[in-house]
Amino acid sequence: MENIEIKNRLTKLRKTMKENGIDYYMMPTSDYHNSEYVADFFCVRKYFCGFDGSNGTLVVSSDWAGMWTDGRYFIQAEKQMEGTGVKLYRMLDAGVPTINEYLSQNMKKGQVLGFDGKVISTEVGEELENALQDNQVSFKYDMDLAEIVWEDRPELPCNDMYVLSDELCGKSFKEKLSEVRKAMEKSKSVQHLLCKLDDIMWLTNLRGGDVECNPVALSYAFITMNEFFLFVQKDEVTDTVRKYCQDNEIILKDYHDIVEFVSLYDYQGDTLLDKRNVNYTVYKKLVQAAENKGYKYHIADDPTELMKAIKNETELKNIREVYIRDSAALTKFIYWVKTNVGKVPMTEYSAAMKLDGMRAELPGFIELSFPTISAYGSNAAMMHYEATETDYADVKPEGMLLVDSGGTYMGGTTDVTRTIVLGEISDEIKKHYTATCIGMLQLANCNFLEGCYGRNVDIMARQPLWDLNIDYKCGTGHGVGYMLNVHEGPHNIRWRMRPGLEDAVLEPGMIVSDEPGVYIEGSHGIRIENILEVVAGACNGDGQFLHFDQLTYAPIDLDAIDTRYMQPKDIKALNDYHKMVYDKIEPLIEEPEIKEWLKSATRAI
Amino acid sequence: MENIEIKNRLTKLRKTMKENGIDYYMMPTSDYHNSEYVADFFCVRKYFCGFDGSNGTLVVSSDWAGMWTDGRYFIQAEKQMEGTGVKLYRMLDAGVPTINEYLSQNMKKGQVLGFDGKVISTEVGEELENALQDNQVSFKYDMDLAEIVWEDRPELPCNDMYVLSDELCGKSFKEKLSEVRKAMEKSKSVQHLLCKLDDIMWLTNLRGGDVECNPVALSYAFITMNEFFLFVQKDEVTDTVRKYCQDNEIILKDYHDIVEFVSLYDYQGDTLLDKRNVNYTVYKKLVQAAENKGYKYHIADDPTELMKAIKNETELKNIREVYIRDSAALTKFIYWVKTNVGKVPMTEYSAAMKLDGMRAELPGFIELSFPTISAYGSNAAMMHYEATETDYADVKPEGMLLVDSGGTYMGGTTDVTRTIVLGEISDEIKKHYTATCIGMLQLANCNFLEGCYGRNVDIMARQPLWDLNIDYKCGTGHGVGYMLNVHEGPHNIRWRMRPGLEDAVLEPGMIVSDEPGVYIEGSHGIRIENILEVVAGACNGDGQFLHFDQLTYAPIDLDAIDTRYMQPKDIKALNDYHKMVYDKIEPLIEEPEIKEWLKSATRAI
Repeated sequence: MENIEIKNRLTKLRKTMKENGIDYYMMPTSDYHNSEYVADFFCVRKYFCGFDGSNGTLVVSSDWAGMWTDGRYFIQAEKQMEGTGVKLYRMLDAGVPTINEYLSQNMKKGQVLGFDGKVISTEVGEELENALQDNQVSFKYDMDLAEIVWEDRPELPCNDMYVLSDELCGKSFKEKLSEVRKAMEKSKSVQHLLCKLDDIMWLTNLRGGDVECNPVALSYAFITMNEFFLFVQKDEVTDTVRKYCQDNEIILKDYHDIVEFVSLYDYQGDTLLDKRNVNYTVYKKLVQAAENKGYKYHIADDPTELMKAIKNETELKNIREVYIRDSAALTKFIYWVKTNVGKVPMTEYSAAMKLDGMRAELPGFIELSFPTISAYGSNAAMMHYEATETDYADVKPEGMLLVDSGGTYMGGTTDVTRTIVLGEISDEIKKHYTATCIGMLQLANCNFLEGCYGRNVDIMARQPLWDLNIDYKCGTGHGVGYMLNVHEGPHNIRWRMRPGLEDAVLEPGMIVSDEPGVYIEGSHGIRIENILEVVAGACNGDGQFLHFDQLTYAPIDLDAIDTRYMQPKDIKALNDYHKMVYDKIEPLIEEPEIKEWLKSATRAI
Repeated sequence: MENIEIKNRLTKLRKTMKENGIDYYMMPTSDYHNSEYVADFFCVRKYFCGFDGSNGTLVVSSDWAGMWTDGRYFIQAEKQMEGTGVKLYRMLDAGVPTINEYLSQNMKKGQVLGFDGKVISTEVGEELENALQDNQVSFKYDMDLAEIVWEDRPELPCNDMYVLSDELCGKSFKEKLSEVRKAMEKSKSVQHLLCKLDDIMWLTNLRGGDVECNPVALSYAFITMNEFFLFVQKDEVTDTVRKYCQDNEIILKDYHDIVEFVSLYDYQGDTLLDKRNVNYTVYKKLVQAAENKGYKYHIADDPTELMKAIKNETELKNIREVYIRDSAALTKFIYWVKTNVGKVPMTEYSAAMKLDGMRAELPGFIELSFPTISAYGSNAAMMHYEATETDYADVKPEGMLLVDSGGTYMGGTTDVTRTIVLGEISDEIKKHYTATCIGMLQLANCNFLEGCYGRNVDIMARQPLWDLNIDYKCGTGHGVGYMLNVHEGPHNIRWRMRPGLEDAVLEPGMIVSDEPGVYIEGSHGIRIENILEVVAGACNGDGQFLHFDQLTYAPIDLDAIDTRYMQPKDIKALNDYHKMVYDKIEPLIEEPEIKEWLKSATRAI
C-alpha cells in the first residue's frame, strides 16, 4: 500500500532541493550535539521516511531515496517504510554499500550534496569529503531544508534546568573541572570545546529536560584555563541554576550564540576538541578563527567521556541501591503479567504503562531512561520495537512478552530486559532462551585481565548462540550513565570493531550492560539483559584480574529454561544468581503472594 | 657470580662507541629482513649479553646496559644474563618503560644514538625518530659496531637454494606473481620491494638454507609490472635454480647489490613497500631515489603475507597428511618416554635427540621447524627453554617433560607441544593441566562468525586459566608456514593488541596454533599445542560461520587429567578428540605394544 503522506513530503523536499541546486540531500539522526536520542525538532529523517529507530540516515535524490540503518532495525525499518518508495540499505550486510560508497558510486561531476552541517559531526563530514574527493562534487551544508518543507515542525525544546547536590554526585563541578583542565594541559591545549550534552551535564552537575528520556539541557561548554562558558537557552535557567552558576563562576551565554562566540574568541593557544562530537559548522568556524591567530587544534576523545564512565564510590553506592529498587519493581511487574495474562485485558502498550507506572512510584523517580519496549510474540524479533497507544498487539496467555525498560532516579539510571513466558512455548524457543541465559551469565561470571576491551570478552555471551549458528546483530553491551543517558561510552562489549567507534579498556567502576538475545523474524525474540559493574579481583604476577558484579536482580523465567541444554556449571550459575535475586529482592516485597511466587521463580533447578 | 666474558665484550663495545662518538648503542634481534630467527652472524645482542631468546633488544651506554624482552623469556633472560650487569626490562609489565620511553627519558641534548640501520625495520626506525624528536639527539645508523668488536664473528650463511615443484606448491610462481601484480595495481604502484624472506620463498617456490630451521635464502625481490629481480648470494644458485629462474624470467642479481640497485633504479611510478619489513637503510635509499624522480611510495602490508597465509587446496591436502605422520612420530616418542623413563639414561637433550631422530626418518623430512624444546620439571616454566648438549637436566620418573617440537617436510611444516607425565604429580598440577586441556579444546571447538580476529576468540583458550587467576604471557596462537617458517602472520590468536602488530581476520584455509599453558616459576610448566585449520561452516542470515578442524593428532596425557575440574562437555570434547587421535594414528603404528598403549592413552574417560 502506498504511503501517500510520506510520498508527498518527499515530493516537496525534491522540489526544494531543485530550487536550491541540490542533487542529493542527506538527513542523519542527530541533533547539534551528536546525541543518540534527539528531540522531535530534529526528527527530519523520520518525517521524510517514516522510520523512527534510533539510528538511520536518509539520502534523497531526484529519482531515488535510500535509508541506512543497522541490524537492530532491519525488520522495523522495512515495516515502517512500506509504501514510501524509500529503499532500505542494511548496514554491514554482505554487498551493501555504505552511504559514502553509494554516493561515491552515484554522484556525478558537478553535482551538489546538501546537508545541515549542524547535525553532522566533523568526523562524518570529513569522511564524506574524503569519500567524494574524486567525484568533483560540492557540498552545500549551510541549509536545513526541513525549515522550508516541514511546516508544522516542533519547536526546539526548552525546559527548566536543575542542580544536583555534590553529595549525590560524589564530586563537585570544581573538582571535575580541575581534572578536565589537567587533561587539557596534557594535550597542550588552553581551550576546550565540549559539545556532548551528557558530558556537559556530568561536568557541571546540572541536568535538564530537553531530550526525551535524557535529563540533559541543549548546551555547549567552552573551557579555558581560567574561565568556563556555558551556552544554554536563557529560558531554561531558573534562579537556583543562576545562583549555582554564579557561585561556581560558570559564565552563562545564550545557546544560539555559540557559532558567533567561537568565530570571535580571542584564542590564546591550541584548542582541544573531539571531532565526533563537534558539529561541522561550529568546527569550521572555530578552526578558521583559531588558525587566523596562528593556533591549531588537538583532536582527542573528550576527556570527560572516560571520567564520566568510571563511576566514583558515591555514584556506585547509589547505583547499587537504585538497581535493587528498580529490580524489585520489575519483579513485581513480571508477577503481575504472569498472573494476569488471559484474565484481564492486556496489550503491549498497557503492560508498558503498568510497568512505567510502577517505576514512577519509586522514590526519586525522574523519568524513564528510554521508552519502554514491550514486544509480544514475533514483535519481539524487532530489537527496538515500540508499541504505541494506537499501534500494539494484544498480550495473550501463550508465547512470550519481551520487556526492555529502565528509569532515571535520583541516584542512578537503570536498564534491564526480561523475556516473560506467558503460556506454551516450543522446544526451539526453550533452546534459544536457555542459550541466551547461559551466555548472559557466562559473560557476567567471567574473570579477565586488566587491559581487556569488550571485544575480548564478547564471545563469552555469544558462544552458546554461535554454537547454534545464531547471532544477534548488535553489541552485547553498552555503558550506562549516572542519572544520565542510558547509553554512554567509551567502553562497550561487542565483537566487531567499527572504524571510528569509541572504545576503552574495561576498568573498575565502569558499568556495562550484558544483553545477548535471539531474534527470529516472524517468530520470536528473546533478550535477557543485566547491568554489570566492573570490579577488581586478584592481583598477582600475571596481572590485575577483573570481574563483574551484578547490579540487576530480577528472575530469569524458569518456564523457558531447559536443563538438557545446560552444563552443571551453567545450572549452578543460574541457581547462584537466583539465590542473590531472592535475597536482595524479597525484603522489598510486602505482598505474601508475590513473596511466595518469587521463592518459586528463583528456586534452584 | 660475575660473567667476565660478557663484561669484557661490553667494555670493548663501550670503547668503540666512545671512539665513534656514540652515547647509546642499540642492538635489536633481526637480520636485514626482520626475520624472527636469525643466523649466528646477526646474533649481536646474544654476543653482548648472553641472552639467546628469539626476542630481545640490548641497549648500552657508557655506564648502563638494558635488555628488553617479552614474558616468554623473563625467567630465561634473568638466568642467562646473571653476572653481566645488564638489567632486564620486562616488556608490558606495569611501570616498565619501553625502549623508546627509556631513551627519551635518559638521552640528553646533543647525544648520539647508534645502531645498524640494516637490522632495524623502517617502522621501528621512524618510531625511534618520533620518540626522540624532542630530545635533540642525532642518529648514527650506518655503522655496525659488531664488525669492529666481534673478532670471531661467524660468516654470513650461504647454502644451496632448491626448487619446489608446482605440484607440491599448488600454484606456480607465475600465477602467484600475477596476483601480486594485481595487488600492486590496486595500490597504484608499479614497483614493489619485497624483503621478507619467507614471502620471497613462497612467491618464487624456491627454498634455501640460510637460517637455522627456516628453509629460506637471504634475498630481496624487486618487482615491477614486467620484470622480477631476485637478489641472492651468487654461490647459492645451483644449475637447477639458475635454469628455473631463466625459464621463469627471474632476473638474478647479487644479494649485496640491493642498496645500490634501489639507489640507481629508474623509477616509473610509485613503489609499494611494507615498512615493517624493509630495513631503514634500504628504505632511505629507495625513497630518496624515487622522490628525486617525483614518485612516492605506498605503505601497505606486503600482499604476499595474506596470500601465503591462506593455504590452497594442494597445500592443505599435503599439510593434513604430513601432520598425521608427524603426530604418529610424536605419539611413538611419548610412548618411548613414558615406558623408558627411569629405566634408561634420559636427559632433556637425549630425549630431544630421540624425537629429532624419529622425525628425521619420516618421508620427505627436510629439517626441524625450530630447535626442539625439551624441558623437564621447573625448566618447563621457561617458555622457550632450550637444553643443549652440555646444559641439560636429567629426566626422572617423576613430574613432567614438556616437549615443543616440529619438522619441515616436503608437504608441510609442523608444530606441536605435549606435556608428558612421568610419575607422581601434585593435585595442583593436575588442576592446571586439566584447565590447559579444556582451554585448548574449547578454542579448537568454537564456532564463530567470519570477521572475527584472533582476539575475539582468544578467551576461549584462556578462560579456564583466567578463572584460576592464571595467565600465560604470550599469544595463544600463530600462523604456520607451508614448508616455511613455523611462525607466520598476518593472523594470530592473542587477546592484547600491540601497536603495529600485524593482524587479519581468520579466514578458511588459514592454519593457526592453539597453545595455552601454565608457567609457574621454579615449579612446573604445562603447554598443550595443536595446530588448527580454519574451515567454513553454516552460512545463514546471521552470516558465515567458521570453525576449526584439528590437524594435530597426539594423545593428551590422561595421567594429568582430573575430571573433577571438567564439565560433561569438556569430557566429551576430550573423548571425541582422543577417538580421532586413535582412528588417525593407529594405522600408522606397527608395534602391537604401542597400539595397545595408544588404545589406553586415548580411552574415553
